[in-house]
Amino acid sequence: MMLSAMGVYSIGVDLGGTNLRVAAMTPDGQILEKLSSSTCYEHGPEGVVHDMVKVVRQVTEDIGRGELAGVGIGFPGFIDMESGVIVGSANLPGFTGFPIRDTIQEHLGTTIILENDANAAALGEKWLGAGKDVDDLVLITLGTGIGGGIVSGGKILRGFRGMAGEIGHMTVFPDGNPCGCGNCGCLEKHASASAIAAMAGMMGIATQRFSAREVYDLALAGNPRAKLVFESVGRALGIAIANLVSLFNFPLYLLSGGPLPAWDFFAPSMFTEIKKRSFTFDSTSTRVEKAVLGSDAGLYGAAYLPLQQHPLASVAIPSPR
Amino acid sequence: MMLSAMGVYSIGVDLGGTNLRVAAMTPDGQILEKLSSSTCYEHGPEGVVHDMVKVVRQVTEDIGRGELAGVGIGFPGFIDMESGVIVGSANLPGFTGFPIRDTIQEHLGTTIILENDANAAALGEKWLGAGKDVDDLVLITLGTGIGGGIVSGGKILRGFRGMAGEIGHMTVFPDGNPCGCGNCGCLEKHASASAIAAMAGMMGIATQRFSAREVYDLALAGNPRAKLVFESVGRALGIAIANLVSLFNFPLYLLSGGPLPAWDFFAPSMFTEIKKRSFTFDSTSTRVEKAVLGSDAGLYGAAYLPLQQHPLASVAIPSPR
Repeated sequence: MMLSAMGVYSIGVDLGGTNLRVAAMTPDGQILEKLSSSTCYEHGPEGVVHDMVKVVRQVTEDIGRGELAGVGIGFPGFIDMESGVIVGSANLPGFTGFPIRDTIQEHLGTTIILENDANAAALGEKWLGAGKDVDDLVLITLGTGIGGGIVSGGKILRGFRGMAGEIGHMTVFPDGNPCGCGNCGCLEKHASASAIAAMAGMMGIATQRFSAREVYDLALAGNPRAKLVFESVGRALGIAIANLVSLFNFPLYLLSGGPLPAWDFFAPSMFTEIKKRSFTFDSTSTRVEKAVLGSDAGLYGAAYLPLQQHPLASVAIPSPR
Repeated sequence: MMLSAMGVYSIGVDLGGTNLRVAAMTPDGQILEKLSSSTCYEHGPEGVVHDMVKVVRQVTEDIGRGELAGVGIGFPGFIDMESGVIVGSANLPGFTGFPIRDTIQEHLGTTIILENDANAAALGEKWLGAGKDVDDLVLITLGTGIGGGIVSGGKILRGFRGMAGEIGHMTVFPDGNPCGCGNCGCLEKHASASAIAAMAGMMGIATQRFSAREVYDLALAGNPRAKLVFESVGRALGIAIANLVSLFNFPLYLLSGGPLPAWDFFAPSMFTEIKKRSFTFDSTSTRVEKAVLGSDAGLYGAAYLPLQQHPLASVAIPSPR
């Protein structure tokens, strides 16, 4: 796609645990360029930054003209927003203590904005996905763990140490499954893809360890115990979402991640719990829906970050209200 | 207190279930005048508005000069913020459907801002109370029920229908005590003053129905069963607050209300639960404390509402950051 001369654009980077994805976007959400690149995480943060800078430079050269509003980076971990230093990451432990923002800024000489990847995904869904028509939403991402992002008034709710949105560690069953965080009954031990697999093991559905996908296939084939696993997942999600509805009174709550195809198996018990546990849900037009951008949500959300701060770009973004 | 000529001031009104309180305040939180008045709620909303308008006019005459930024009103119920109509109130059912904002505006001809009373109390604690040094906090008010208010970025988080902050209806025990809202295990059925009294009854501490205050007196006297009631209250509060910490990552969570003197009896189990259930609490300087303004919090918060919108007044308010 061609960018008009002097047009503003932005670059989003998604630093996954396995590869590096980059997208250049216009303020109205048009993709100018989008590419994936492998990067060797074994070479440490300096090696990753080197690879990232190379790809970003390639993209800016490809686009040629226009004004770069900045580079937004979704990172799978906690970031100290003031210093731009990585506080910790389960997927990329080698980055802990690394001054990622300043290092990249030195190389690229443009605005660099870091964000937790689940937060970026929530912002992406708000910008271009299922949340286009609202200013406030919560995204719950079901994966190995459960992450989440809260968008309030069009902006990510970060908290005072950038640790807001830890939806996976809400307690849903006070005496539930033990979690690595030290708690019992965290949502992610009752509704993540890993929890689905583990519960199928507990049910004795198979002797070998199943994946969530295989449990879903069994449910599709009519296996009543596999169906029961998803019913339990729905209960846990429903308790958590009812609490979110009571606290935030936002119009929209989104689910994304691997277990989403099993929606029809977990949604009935989920909605039963939400309706029972939140009078706000029943008395307002609150929606609980599937996210639509899949794994691109974080990439687009990262690209949106510099645009949110850019005076020219923000004019071009249609407001939902 | 004298107001300087041309100085900006604001009036806050607290419409309790039993009386009407009014305060005139300067932008830096000085009280110019503060008074209580009885009002006959049996005469319906028109009668209450009549009484309120009379008191507000008396206050503006007393002050004489200065610019009135507006009148903020804390109301014990749900308000449709766009229309200024009362959606519902457990304490003042006669107000449902009443266009309270426009009716008062017609009489007084100044800016009228309505707010839920628990939200106003949270804002009051942020402005002049325990939250003076932060921009983000959650207030939990323990009374007959449990209410709450969330202040995010210095402003009340309202939600899209003004129903945010329903902390009392968070589920803490999925199979816990039944609640009038249709749920089981709502926080307010395990930690409100009414719940304390009811649990003491369950424990067989006395045959007659005790008040929360009497249960507290028994605990003070060393009664082990009364102490157990407060330990249970602490557990419920701890589960709820841990969830708030995981979601918001705010620096401050405040408790207020009648059971506050029993802090030493419920706080130990409360902090045990928070520490166990929220890694965010342990890894940041998160504080859980007593609110300090008591029943004045809502009155001051109501007065702050018009000042937040007033261009001259906002200049005079010292920013915590």
